[in-house]
Amino acid sequence: MMTRYRARLAYDGTAYSGYQRQAAGIRTVQGEVEATLARLFKQPVTVLAAGRTDAGVHARGQVIAFDATWRQDDDQLLRAINAGLPDDIALQAIRQQPGFHPRFDARSRTYRYEVLIAAVRQPLVRRRAWRKHQALDLIAMQTAAALLIGKHDFATFGKPPEGTNTVRELFRSIWQQEAVEAGQRLTYIIEGTAFLQHMVRRIVGMLVEVGSGRRSLQAFEDAFRAADLSQAGHLAPPHGLYLQSVQYADDPTDDANWQQTDETRRATPHL
Amino acid sequence: MMTRYRARLAYDGTAYSGYQRQAAGIRTVQGEVEATLARLFKQPVTVLAAGRTDAGVHARGQVIAFDATWRQDDDQLLRAINAGLPDDIALQAIRQQPGFHPRFDARSRTYRYEVLIAAVRQPLVRRRAWRKHQALDLIAMQTAAALLIGKHDFATFGKPPEGTNTVRELFRSIWQQEAVEAGQRLTYIIEGTAFLQHMVRRIVGMLVEVGSGRRSLQAFEDAFRAADLSQAGHLAPPHGLYLQSVQYADDPTDDANWQQTDETRRATPHL
Repeated sequence: MMTRYRARLAYDGTAYSGYQRQAAGIRTVQGEVEATLARLFKQPVTVLAAGRTDAGVHARGQVIAFDATWRQDDDQLLRAINAGLPDDIALQAIRQQPGFHPRFDARSRTYRYEVLIAAVRQPLVRRRAWRKHQALDLIAMQTAAALLIGKHDFATFGKPPEGTNTVRELFRSIWQQEAVEAGQRLTYIIEGTAFLQHMVRRIVGMLVEVGSGRRSLQAFEDAFRAADLSQAGHLAPPHGLYLQSVQYADDPTDDANWQQTDETRRATPHL
Repeated sequence: MMTRYRARLAYDGTAYSGYQRQAAGIRTVQGEVEATLARLFKQPVTVLAAGRTDAGVHARGQVIAFDATWRQDDDQLLRAINAGLPDDIALQAIRQQPGFHPRFDARSRTYRYEVLIAAVRQPLVRRRAWRKHQALDLIAMQTAAALLIGKHDFATFGKPPEGTNTVRELFRSIWQQEAVEAGQRLTYIIEGTAFLQHMVRRIVGMLVEVGSGRRSLQAFEDAFRAADLSQAGHLAPPHGLYLQSVQYADDPTDDANWQQTDETRRATPHL
Protein backbone atom coordinates (compact mmCIF):
# COMPACT_ATOMS: atom_id res chain seq x y z
CA MET A 1 0.00 0.00 0.00
CA MET A 2 1.27 3.45 -0.88
CA THR A 3 2.05 5.81 1.99
CA ARG A 4 2.61 9.54 1.75
CA TYR A 5 6.01 10.53 3.10
CA ARG A 6 7.00 14.01 4.15
CA ALA A 7 10.70 14.90 4.27
CA ARG A 8 13.02 17.81 4.88
CA LEU A 9 15.78 18.26 2.32
CA ALA A 10 19.11 20.13 2.40
CA TYR A 11 21.22 20.82 -0.65
CA ASP A 12 24.15 22.75 -2.00
CA GLY A 13 22.63 24.38 -5.08
CA THR A 14 25.97 25.16 -6.76
CA ALA A 15 25.87 22.33 -9.30
CA TYR A 16 22.15 22.51 -10.11
CA SER A 17 20.00 24.43 -12.59
CA GLY A 18 17.58 25.06 -9.76
CA TYR A 19 15.19 22.86 -7.83
CA GLN A 20 12.56 22.18 -10.47
CA ARG A 21 12.90 19.27 -12.90
CA GLN A 22 13.75 20.32 -16.47
CA ALA A 23 14.48 18.57 -19.73
CA ALA A 24 16.67 15.46 -19.69
CA GLY A 25 20.35 16.34 -19.41
CA ILE A 26 19.78 19.42 -17.23
CA ARG A 27 20.77 18.73 -13.64
CA THR A 28 18.12 19.73 -11.09
CA VAL A 29 17.54 18.85 -7.46
CA GLN A 30 14.08 17.46 -8.14
CA GLY A 31 15.47 15.39 -11.01
CA GLU A 32 18.16 13.89 -8.76
CA VAL A 33 15.73 13.11 -5.94
CA GLU A 34 13.19 11.54 -8.29
CA ALA A 35 15.88 9.47 -10.01
CA THR A 36 17.11 8.22 -6.62
CA LEU A 37 13.59 7.30 -5.50
CA ALA A 38 12.86 5.60 -8.83
CA ARG A 39 15.96 3.42 -8.44
CA LEU A 40 15.05 2.60 -4.84
CA PHE A 41 11.37 1.79 -5.46
CA LYS A 42 11.88 0.42 -8.98
CA GLN A 43 9.14 2.64 -10.43
CA PRO A 44 8.72 6.32 -11.32
CA VAL A 45 8.13 8.61 -8.30
CA THR A 46 6.89 12.21 -8.47
CA VAL A 47 8.19 14.53 -5.76
CA LEU A 48 6.16 17.52 -4.53
CA ALA A 49 7.99 20.46 -2.95
CA ALA A 50 7.15 23.52 -0.85
CA GLY A 51 8.90 25.88 -3.24
CA ARG A 52 11.26 26.21 -6.17
CA THR A 53 14.76 27.54 -5.79
CA ASP A 54 16.79 29.19 -8.56
CA ALA A 55 20.00 27.82 -10.03
CA GLY A 56 22.76 28.12 -7.43
CA VAL A 57 20.40 28.69 -4.49
CA HIS A 58 20.83 26.43 -1.45
CA ALA A 59 18.37 24.84 0.95
CA ARG A 60 18.58 23.81 4.58
CA GLY A 61 14.86 23.14 4.94
CA GLN A 62 13.14 22.45 1.63
CA VAL A 63 10.09 20.30 2.36
CA ILE A 64 9.05 17.56 -0.05
CA ALA A 65 6.50 14.75 -0.23
CA PHE A 66 6.08 11.59 -2.27
CA ASP A 67 4.11 8.35 -2.22
CA ALA A 68 5.82 5.02 -1.82
CA THR A 69 5.54 1.53 -0.44
CA TRP A 70 8.24 0.72 2.09
CA ARG A 71 8.21 -2.20 4.51
CA GLN A 72 10.97 -1.12 6.89
CA ASP A 73 10.95 1.79 9.33
CA ASP A 74 11.33 5.48 8.51
CA ASP A 75 14.96 5.68 9.65
CA GLN A 76 15.91 2.90 7.30
CA LEU A 77 14.12 4.69 4.48
CA LEU A 78 15.99 7.90 5.23
CA ARG A 79 19.31 6.04 5.15
CA ALA A 80 18.41 4.20 1.93
CA ILE A 81 17.49 7.46 0.18
CA ASN A 82 20.57 9.31 1.43
CA ALA A 83 22.78 6.45 0.28
CA GLY A 84 21.41 6.95 -3.22
CA LEU A 85 21.50 10.75 -3.37
CA PRO A 86 24.60 12.64 -4.57
CA ASP A 87 26.77 14.18 -1.86
CA ASP A 88 25.36 17.68 -2.38
CA ILE A 89 21.79 16.63 -1.51
CA ALA A 90 20.61 14.91 1.68
CA LEU A 91 17.33 14.25 3.46
CA GLN A 92 17.44 15.66 6.98
CA ALA A 93 14.29 13.99 8.34
CA ILE A 94 11.39 11.88 7.08
CA ARG A 95 8.03 10.74 8.39
CA GLN A 96 4.67 9.44 7.20
CA GLN A 97 1.88 11.99 6.92
CA PRO A 98 -1.23 10.95 5.00
CA GLY A 99 -2.69 13.74 2.86
CA PHE A 100 0.24 16.10 3.39
CA HIS A 101 0.99 18.55 0.57
CA PRO A 102 4.21 20.55 1.02
CA ARG A 103 3.09 23.51 -1.07
CA PHE A 104 -0.64 23.83 -0.39
CA ASP A 105 -0.32 23.16 3.34
CA ALA A 106 2.54 25.61 3.92
CA ARG A 107 1.70 28.60 6.09
CA SER A 108 4.93 30.43 5.36
CA ARG A 109 8.43 30.09 3.93
CA THR A 110 11.60 31.43 5.53
CA TYR A 111 14.64 32.34 3.45
CA ARG A 112 18.03 33.57 4.60
CA TYR A 113 20.52 35.58 2.60
CA GLU A 114 24.16 35.77 3.67
CA VAL A 115 26.28 38.83 2.88
CA LEU A 116 29.94 38.78 3.90
CA ILE A 117 31.73 42.09 4.30
CA ALA A 118 35.39 41.32 3.66
CA ALA A 119 38.13 43.36 2.05
CA VAL A 120 39.43 40.42 0.03
CA ARG A 121 38.02 37.25 -1.52
CA GLN A 122 37.26 34.42 0.94
CA PRO A 123 37.80 31.12 -0.88
CA LEU A 124 36.26 28.96 1.85
CA VAL A 125 32.83 30.61 1.64
CA ARG A 126 32.88 31.72 -1.99
CA ARG A 127 29.78 29.66 -2.81
CA ARG A 128 27.99 30.34 0.45
CA ALA A 129 27.75 34.13 0.78
CA TRP A 130 27.70 37.30 -1.36
CA ARG A 131 30.94 39.09 -0.59
CA LYS A 132 30.94 42.89 -0.53
CA HIS A 133 34.25 44.59 0.09
CA GLN A 134 32.89 47.77 1.67
CA ALA A 135 30.93 48.31 4.85
CA LEU A 136 27.16 48.67 4.50
CA ASP A 137 24.91 51.01 6.48
CA LEU A 138 23.04 48.41 8.52
CA ILE A 139 20.65 50.90 10.11
CA ALA A 140 19.47 52.11 6.70
CA MET A 141 19.11 48.51 5.51
CA GLN A 142 17.21 47.56 8.64
CA THR A 143 14.84 50.50 8.22
CA ALA A 144 14.22 49.67 4.57
CA ALA A 145 13.70 46.00 5.39
CA ALA A 146 11.11 46.84 8.05
CA LEU A 147 8.98 48.71 5.47
CA LEU A 148 8.26 45.40 3.77
CA ILE A 149 6.64 43.69 6.75
CA GLY A 150 2.90 43.19 6.39
CA LYS A 151 0.55 42.68 3.46
CA HIS A 152 1.66 44.62 0.39
CA ASP A 153 1.79 44.58 -3.38
CA PHE A 154 5.34 43.35 -4.08
CA ALA A 155 5.20 43.88 -7.85
CA THR A 156 8.45 45.87 -7.72
CA PHE A 157 10.25 42.69 -6.66
CA GLY A 158 8.94 40.08 -9.08
CA LYS A 159 6.43 38.69 -11.50
CA PRO A 160 3.55 36.58 -10.19
CA PRO A 161 2.83 33.05 -11.39
CA GLU A 162 0.26 33.13 -14.19
CA GLY A 163 -3.28 33.91 -13.02
CA THR A 164 -2.28 35.28 -9.58
CA ASN A 165 -1.50 38.74 -8.27
CA THR A 166 1.54 40.27 -6.61
CA VAL A 167 0.11 40.78 -3.12
CA ARG A 168 1.99 38.84 -0.48
CA GLU A 169 2.31 39.03 3.29
CA LEU A 170 5.67 39.19 5.06
CA PHE A 171 5.97 38.27 8.74
CA ARG A 172 9.69 38.90 9.15
CA SER A 173 12.19 41.04 7.26
CA ILE A 174 15.25 41.68 9.37
CA TRP A 175 19.04 41.86 9.24
CA GLN A 176 21.33 40.27 11.81
CA GLN A 177 25.05 40.88 12.04
CA GLU A 178 27.94 39.03 13.58
CA ALA A 179 31.69 39.32 13.53
CA VAL A 180 33.50 36.55 11.69
CA GLU A 181 37.20 35.97 11.08
CA ALA A 182 37.20 37.49 7.64
CA GLY A 183 35.15 40.53 8.58
CA GLN A 184 31.44 40.89 9.23
CA ARG A 185 28.52 38.70 8.26
CA LEU A 186 25.12 40.23 7.59
CA THR A 187 22.25 37.77 7.43
CA TYR A 188 18.88 38.80 6.07
CA ILE A 189 15.91 36.75 7.30
CA ILE A 190 12.67 36.98 5.43
CA GLU A 191 9.50 35.02 6.15
CA GLY A 192 6.30 35.33 4.16
CA THR A 193 3.24 33.49 2.97
CA ALA A 194 4.76 32.96 -0.44
CA PHE A 195 7.24 34.65 -2.74
CA LEU A 196 7.29 35.90 -6.32
CA GLN A 197 9.98 34.64 -8.66
CA HIS A 198 13.36 36.21 -7.74
CA MET A 199 11.63 38.25 -5.03
CA VAL A 200 14.13 37.61 -2.24
CA ARG A 201 17.14 38.23 -4.47
CA ARG A 202 15.59 41.46 -5.79
CA ILE A 203 14.81 42.66 -2.28
CA VAL A 204 18.35 41.88 -1.10
CA GLY A 205 19.83 43.55 -4.17
CA MET A 206 17.89 46.73 -3.42
CA LEU A 207 18.56 46.63 0.33
CA VAL A 208 22.29 46.38 -0.40
CA GLU A 209 21.94 49.40 -2.73
CA VAL A 210 20.47 51.25 0.25
CA GLY A 211 23.26 50.02 2.51
CA SER A 212 25.94 51.15 0.10
CA GLY A 213 24.39 54.60 -0.38
CA ARG A 214 23.58 54.06 -4.05
CA ARG A 215 19.87 54.35 -3.33
CA SER A 216 18.32 56.48 -0.59
CA LEU A 217 15.78 55.13 1.88
CA GLN A 218 13.20 57.41 0.29
CA ALA A 219 14.02 56.12 -3.19
CA PHE A 220 13.71 52.56 -1.91
CA GLU A 221 10.33 53.28 -0.39
CA ASP A 222 9.12 55.06 -3.53
CA ALA A 223 10.18 52.15 -5.73
CA PHE A 224 8.48 49.67 -3.38
CA ARG A 225 5.22 51.69 -3.22
CA ALA A 226 5.22 52.10 -7.00
CA ALA A 227 4.62 48.34 -7.31
CA ASP A 228 6.45 48.42 -10.62
CA LEU A 229 9.05 45.83 -11.64
CA SER A 230 10.89 48.38 -13.81
CA GLN A 231 11.90 50.21 -10.61
CA ALA A 232 13.80 47.21 -9.24
CA GLY A 233 17.55 47.09 -8.85
CA HIS A 234 19.88 44.22 -9.69
CA LEU A 235 19.29 40.72 -8.40
CA ALA A 236 21.58 39.66 -5.59
CA PRO A 237 23.55 36.59 -6.72
CA PRO A 238 22.01 33.18 -6.00
CA HIS A 239 24.84 31.67 -3.94
CA GLY A 240 24.04 33.74 -0.82
CA LEU A 241 20.43 32.54 -0.68
CA TYR A 242 19.08 29.63 1.40
CA LEU A 243 15.58 28.20 1.65
CA GLN A 244 15.82 27.92 5.41
CA SER A 245 12.53 26.40 6.53
CA VAL A 246 8.86 26.00 5.72
CA GLN A 247 6.22 26.47 8.39
CA TYR A 248 3.01 24.44 8.61
CA ALA A 249 -0.01 25.28 10.73
CA ASP A 250 -0.62 21.65 11.72
CA ASP A 251 2.85 21.06 12.94
CA PRO A 252 4.14 22.39 16.24
CA THR A 253 7.13 20.06 16.35
CA ASP A 254 9.17 19.25 13.28
CA ASP A 255 9.59 22.39 11.24
CA ALA A 256 8.85 24.66 14.18
CA ASN A 257 12.09 23.37 15.62
CA TRP A 258 13.89 24.76 12.64
CA GLN A 259 12.29 28.08 13.22
CA GLN A 260 13.30 28.03 16.83
CA THR A 261 16.84 27.26 15.78
CA ASP A 262 16.53 30.12 13.37
CA GLU A 263 15.63 32.48 16.20
CA THR A 264 18.38 31.32 18.50
CA ARG A 265 21.21 30.93 16.06
CA ARG A 266 22.49 34.49 16.29
CA ALA A 267 25.39 33.26 18.37
CA THR A 268 25.89 29.99 16.51
CA PRO A 269 27.50 29.42 13.15
CA HIS A 270 26.12 27.29 10.38
CA LEU A 271 27.86 27.72 7.07
CA MET B 1 65.11 46.31 -7.38
CA MET B 2 63.71 43.09 -5.93
CA THR B 3 61.78 43.36 -2.70
CA ARG B 4 60.81 40.50 -0.41
CA TYR B 5 57.05 40.31 0.07
CA ARG B 6 55.32 38.48 2.88
CA ALA B 7 51.70 37.44 2.43
CA ARG B 8 48.93 35.51 4.13
CA LEU B 9 47.09 33.03 1.95
CA ALA B 10 43.68 31.35 2.27
CA TYR B 11 42.55 28.44 0.15
CA ASP B 12 39.96 25.77 -0.28
CA GLY B 13 42.12 22.66 -0.62
CA THR B 14 39.41 20.48 -2.19
CA ALA B 15 40.68 20.71 -5.77
CA TYR B 16 44.40 20.49 -5.00
CA SER B 17 46.94 17.71 -4.58
CA GLY B 18 48.25 19.57 -1.57
CA TYR B 19 50.20 22.79 -1.14
CA GLN B 20 53.59 21.75 -2.47
CA ARG B 21 54.41 22.02 -6.18
CA GLN B 22 54.59 18.68 -7.98
CA ALA B 23 55.14 17.52 -11.55
CA ALA B 24 53.49 19.42 -14.38
CA GLY B 25 49.81 18.52 -14.73
CA ILE B 26 49.27 17.98 -10.99
CA ARG B 27 47.34 20.85 -9.50
CA THR B 28 48.87 22.29 -6.35
CA VAL B 29 48.40 25.52 -4.44
CA GLN B 30 52.06 26.48 -4.79
CA GLY B 31 51.91 25.74 -8.50
CA GLU B 32 48.89 28.02 -8.96
CA VAL B 33 50.40 30.85 -6.94
CA GLU B 34 53.74 30.62 -8.76
CA ALA B 35 52.02 30.53 -12.14
CA THR B 36 49.97 33.61 -11.24
CA LEU B 37 53.06 35.51 -10.06
CA ALA B 38 55.01 34.47 -13.16
CA ARG B 39 52.26 35.86 -15.40
CA LEU B 40 52.11 39.09 -13.39
CA PHE B 41 55.87 39.70 -13.21
CA LYS B 42 56.69 38.10 -16.58
CA GLN B 43 59.40 35.92 -15.07
CA PRO B 44 59.59 32.76 -12.92
CA VAL B 45 58.92 33.35 -9.21
CA THR B 46 59.62 30.89 -6.42
CA VAL B 47 57.25 31.00 -3.47
CA LEU B 48 58.36 30.04 0.05
CA ALA B 49 55.74 28.85 2.55
CA ALA B 50 55.47 28.29 6.30
CA GLY B 51 54.27 24.74 5.89
CA ARG B 52 52.92 22.14 3.52
CA THR B 53 49.33 21.01 3.60
CA ASP B 54 48.08 17.62 2.34
CA ALA B 55 45.70 17.12 -0.57
CA GLY B 56 42.25 18.36 0.45
CA VAL B 57 43.47 20.34 3.47
CA HIS B 58 42.42 24.00 3.69
CA ALA B 59 44.18 27.13 4.88
CA ARG B 60 42.99 30.37 6.41
CA GLY B 61 46.46 31.58 7.33
CA GLN B 62 49.21 29.98 5.27
CA VAL B 63 52.15 32.41 5.19
CA ILE B 64 54.24 32.77 2.05
CA ALA B 65 57.07 34.96 0.74
CA PHE B 66 58.51 35.80 -2.64
CA ASP B 67 60.82 38.36 -4.26
CA ALA B 68 59.52 40.75 -6.87
CA THR B 69 59.85 44.19 -8.36
CA TRP B 70 56.62 46.17 -8.14
CA ARG B 71 56.26 49.91 -8.63
CA GLN B 72 52.80 50.46 -7.20
CA ASP B 73 51.65 50.12 -3.60
CA ASP B 74 51.05 46.93 -1.67
CA ASP B 75 47.24 47.10 -1.92
CA GLN B 76 47.46 47.27 -5.68
CA LEU B 77 49.80 44.28 -5.68
CA LEU B 78 47.35 42.31 -3.53
CA ARG B 79 44.52 43.11 -5.92
CA ALA B 80 46.61 42.25 -8.98
CA ILE B 81 47.60 38.87 -7.53
CA ASN B 82 44.06 38.03 -6.40
CA ALA B 83 42.71 38.95 -9.83
CA GLY B 84 45.03 36.33 -11.31
CA LEU B 85 44.49 33.54 -8.77
CA PRO B 86 41.69 30.97 -9.17
CA ASP B 87 38.59 31.51 -7.01
CA ASP B 88 39.60 28.87 -4.46
CA ILE B 89 42.84 30.68 -3.53
CA ALA B 90 43.19 34.29 -2.33
CA LEU B 91 45.81 36.44 -0.62
CA GLN B 92 44.42 37.92 2.58
CA ALA B 93 47.18 40.45 3.25
CA ILE B 94 50.57 41.42 1.89
CA ARG B 95 53.47 43.60 2.97
CA GLN B 96 57.18 44.11 2.34
CA GLN B 97 59.55 42.51 4.83
CA PRO B 98 63.23 42.31 3.85
CA GLY B 99 64.88 39.05 4.89
CA PHE B 100 61.65 37.39 5.98
CA HIS B 101 61.48 33.60 5.65
CA PRO B 102 58.05 32.08 6.34
CA ARG B 103 59.37 28.69 7.42
CA PHE B 104 62.62 29.45 9.24
CA ASP B 105 61.24 32.49 11.07
CA ALA B 106 58.06 30.79 12.27
CA ARG B 107 57.77 30.34 16.02
CA SER B 108 54.71 28.09 15.83
CA ARG B 109 51.90 26.88 13.58
CA THR B 110 48.25 26.63 14.55
CA TYR B 111 45.92 24.13 12.92
CA ARG B 112 42.21 23.62 13.46
CA TYR B 113 40.23 20.48 12.82
CA GLU B 114 36.43 20.61 12.50
CA VAL B 115 34.29 17.62 13.48
CA LEU B 116 30.55 17.90 12.95
CA ILE B 117 28.28 15.61 14.97
CA ALA B 118 25.12 15.23 12.89
CA ALA B 119 22.78 12.31 12.42
CA VAL B 120 22.59 12.77 8.65
CA ARG B 121 24.82 14.10 5.88
CA GLN B 122 25.15 17.90 5.71
CA PRO B 123 25.64 18.87 2.05
CA LEU B 124 26.53 22.50 2.77
CA VAL B 125 29.59 21.63 4.86
CA ARG B 126 30.53 18.31 3.30
CA ARG B 127 33.99 19.59 2.30
CA ARG B 128 34.57 21.65 5.43
CA ALA B 129 34.18 19.25 8.36
CA TRP B 130 34.48 15.55 9.24
CA ARG B 131 30.95 14.41 9.96
CA LYS B 132 30.42 11.79 12.66
CA HIS B 133 26.89 10.59 13.24
CA GLN B 134 27.24 9.65 16.89
CA ALA B 135 28.02 11.77 19.93
CA LEU B 136 31.63 11.75 21.15
CA ASP B 137 32.84 11.82 24.75
CA LEU B 138 34.29 15.30 24.80
CA ILE B 139 35.71 14.99 28.32
CA ALA B 140 37.72 11.91 27.34
CA MET B 141 38.91 13.65 24.16
CA GLN B 142 39.85 16.76 26.10
CA THR B 143 41.81 14.72 28.64
CA ALA B 144 43.65 12.82 25.92
CA ALA B 145 44.37 16.05 24.01
CA ALA B 146 45.86 17.66 27.12
CA LEU B 147 48.41 14.84 27.45
CA LEU B 148 50.07 16.06 24.26
CA ILE B 149 50.90 19.56 25.48
CA GLY B 150 54.59 20.15 26.06
CA LYS B 151 57.80 18.76 24.57
CA HIS B 152 57.45 15.11 23.61
CA ASP B 153 58.50 12.46 21.14
CA PHE B 154 55.55 12.37 18.72
CA ALA B 155 56.79 9.36 16.71
CA THR B 156 53.41 7.64 17.16
CA PHE B 157 51.82 10.35 15.07
CA GLY B 158 54.15 10.68 12.11
CA LYS B 159 57.45 10.29 10.34
CA PRO B 160 60.04 13.05 10.60
CA PRO B 161 61.55 14.78 7.58
CA GLU B 162 64.83 13.11 6.65
CA GLY B 163 67.67 13.85 9.04
CA THR B 164 65.50 15.16 11.90
CA ASN B 165 63.90 13.56 14.92
CA THR B 166 60.32 13.24 16.12
CA VAL B 167 60.50 15.54 19.14
CA ARG B 168 58.17 18.52 18.88
CA GLU B 169 56.68 20.98 21.35
CA LEU B 170 52.95 21.66 21.56
CA PHE B 171 51.62 24.84 23.17
CA ARG B 172 47.91 24.18 22.72
CA SER B 173 45.87 21.03 22.22
CA ILE B 174 42.24 21.66 23.06
CA TRP B 175 38.68 20.95 21.92
CA GLN B 176 35.92 23.54 21.74
CA GLN B 177 32.29 22.77 21.14
CA GLU B 178 29.34 24.79 19.96
CA ALA B 179 25.77 24.05 18.96
CA VAL B 180 25.03 24.46 15.27
CA GLU B 181 21.81 23.96 13.34
CA ALA B 182 22.69 20.49 12.17
CA GLY B 183 23.94 19.27 15.54
CA GLN B 184 27.17 19.96 17.37
CA ARG B 185 30.51 21.20 16.13
CA LEU B 186 33.71 20.10 17.83
CA THR B 187 36.78 22.10 16.90
CA TYR B 188 40.25 20.88 17.79
CA ILE B 189 42.92 23.56 18.07
CA ILE B 190 46.54 22.52 18.05
CA GLU B 191 49.55 24.82 18.12
CA GLY B 192 53.13 23.64 18.06
CA THR B 193 56.64 24.51 16.98
CA ALA B 194 56.37 22.27 13.94
CA PHE B 195 54.51 19.15 12.85
CA LEU B 196 55.41 15.76 11.44
CA GLN B 197 53.77 14.63 8.22
CA HIS B 198 50.09 13.73 8.84
CA MET B 199 50.62 14.43 12.56
CA VAL B 200 47.47 16.51 13.12
CA ARG B 201 45.24 14.13 11.19
CA ARG B 202 46.67 11.12 13.08
CA ILE B 203 46.17 12.85 16.42
CA VAL B 204 42.57 13.76 15.53
CA GLY B 205 41.90 10.24 14.28
CA MET B 206 43.09 8.79 17.60
CA LEU B 207 41.30 11.39 19.72
CA VAL B 208 38.06 10.56 17.92
CA GLU B 209 38.70 6.87 18.65
CA VAL B 210 38.92 7.85 22.31
CA GLY B 211 35.75 9.92 22.04
CA SER B 212 33.81 7.09 20.45
CA GLY B 213 34.99 4.56 23.04
CA ARG B 214 36.95 2.46 20.55
CA ARG B 215 40.19 3.26 22.37
CA SER B 216 40.50 3.90 26.10
CA LEU B 217 42.30 6.90 27.53
CA GLN B 218 44.93 4.54 28.91
CA ALA B 219 45.40 2.89 25.52
CA PHE B 220 45.76 6.34 23.95
CA GLU B 221 48.38 7.34 26.49
CA ASP B 222 50.24 4.04 26.11
CA ALA B 223 50.33 4.41 22.31
CA PHE B 224 51.54 8.01 22.62
CA ARG B 225 54.27 7.15 25.14
CA ALA B 226 55.42 4.19 23.02
CA ALA B 227 56.58 6.69 20.36
CA ASP B 228 55.86 4.08 17.72
CA LEU B 229 54.07 4.82 14.46
CA SER B 230 52.70 1.28 14.29
CA GLN B 231 50.47 2.10 17.28
CA ALA B 232 48.67 4.91 15.47
CA GLY B 233 45.04 4.74 14.46
CA HIS B 234 43.50 5.87 11.20
CA LEU B 235 44.11 9.30 9.75
CA ALA B 236 41.23 11.73 10.10
CA PRO B 237 40.14 12.82 6.61
CA PRO B 238 41.83 15.92 5.15
CA HIS B 239 38.73 18.05 4.52
CA GLY B 240 38.22 18.89 8.22
CA LEU B 241 41.74 20.32 8.60
CA TYR B 242 42.75 23.99 8.32
CA LEU B 243 46.15 25.64 8.56
CA GLN B 244 44.79 28.44 10.69
CA SER B 245 47.73 30.72 11.37
CA VAL B 246 51.48 30.93 11.73
CA GLN B 247 53.06 32.82 14.57
CA TYR B 248 56.29 34.85 14.29
CA ALA B 249 58.35 36.15 17.19
CA ASP B 250 59.09 39.45 15.47
CA ASP B 251 55.52 40.29 14.73
CA PRO B 252 53.10 41.53 17.34
CA THR B 253 50.58 42.80 14.82
CA ASP B 254 49.77 40.90 11.66
CA ASP B 255 49.58 37.23 12.49
CA ALA B 256 49.05 37.83 16.17
CA ASN B 257 45.72 39.32 15.17
CA TRP B 258 44.77 36.01 13.68
CA GLN B 259 45.67 34.31 16.88
CA GLN B 260 43.61 36.75 18.87
CA THR B 261 40.72 36.07 16.53
CA ASP B 262 41.42 32.44 17.11
CA GLU B 263 41.01 32.86 20.84
CA THR B 264 37.86 34.91 20.65
CA ARG B 265 36.04 33.11 17.93
CA ARG B 266 34.26 30.60 20.16
CA ALA B 267 31.02 32.52 19.69
CA THR B 268 31.61 33.42 16.06
CA PRO B 269 31.22 31.24 13.00
CA HIS B 270 33.76 30.91 10.26
CA LEU B 271 33.11 28.05 7.89
